[in-house]
Amino acid sequence: MELDDVSATGTCCAPLSGPALDESEASELAKVFKALSDPVRLRLLNMIASADGGEACVCDLTGAFELTGPTISHHLKVLRQTGLIDGERRGTWVYYRVVPERLTRLSGLFALPALAPA
Amino acid sequence: MELDDVSATGTCCAPLSGPALDESEASELAKVFKALSDPVRLRLLNMIASADGGEACVCDLTGAFELTGPTISHHLKVLRQTGLIDGERRGTWVYYRVVPERLTRLSGLFALPALAPA
Repeated sequence: MELDDVSATGTCCAPLSGPALDESEASELAKVFKALSDPVRLRLLNMIASADGGEACVCDLTGAFELTGPTISHHLKVLRQTGLIDGERRGTWVYYRVVPERLTRLSGLFALPALAPA
Repeated sequence: MELDDVSATGTCCAPLSGPALDESEASELAKVFKALSDPVRLRLLNMIASADGGEACVCDLTGAFELTGPTISHHLKVLRQTGLIDGERRGTWVYYRVVPERLTRLSGLFALPALAPA
């Protein structure tokens, strides 16, 4: 997995304890948290982030829930719209993986000064 | 600011790339993200987290928005219910500060293996 060294520079990942969020940034982040405000979507993101090889087949994700395929697909679409995950169709199935930069950005958002010096 | 060394032990802060979230943990986290899915609440949390001396008076927070005092108080109550902030009344005003352990828990949630080895 390639990771841009974003947390070290601080340019992309200003923490909440740092500079003031402007309204547009706050609105954009609010949409991301809206997407995460659902237990099924959190569990899907968890399954994708922890998948062997870094990617999870939609066929594996669907089986873990007592939900229909279309419902799972809807939740995956919401996650994908936030940029937290990306999907690629290969043959019959779509395979999902996390977008490391987006997770790192959220991790940095909640970092505290003592843990992540500016 | 005192910080428990929670991210180092990993016991409180399993990342999304780690063990499976159970349903109750996913539901609890979903509520936290629901609280964060509002731009005004994000900006309030930002203002509290970045306040000089680590705390912000509700009198300062209210003045930054074109919203009524009761509306700001409602948003602060929602944030407080998540455990992300705590408030203390001293004299006329309530003073808010972040709860470092809760922010660190969220930071750890989005940490990636390369950045936060298990």
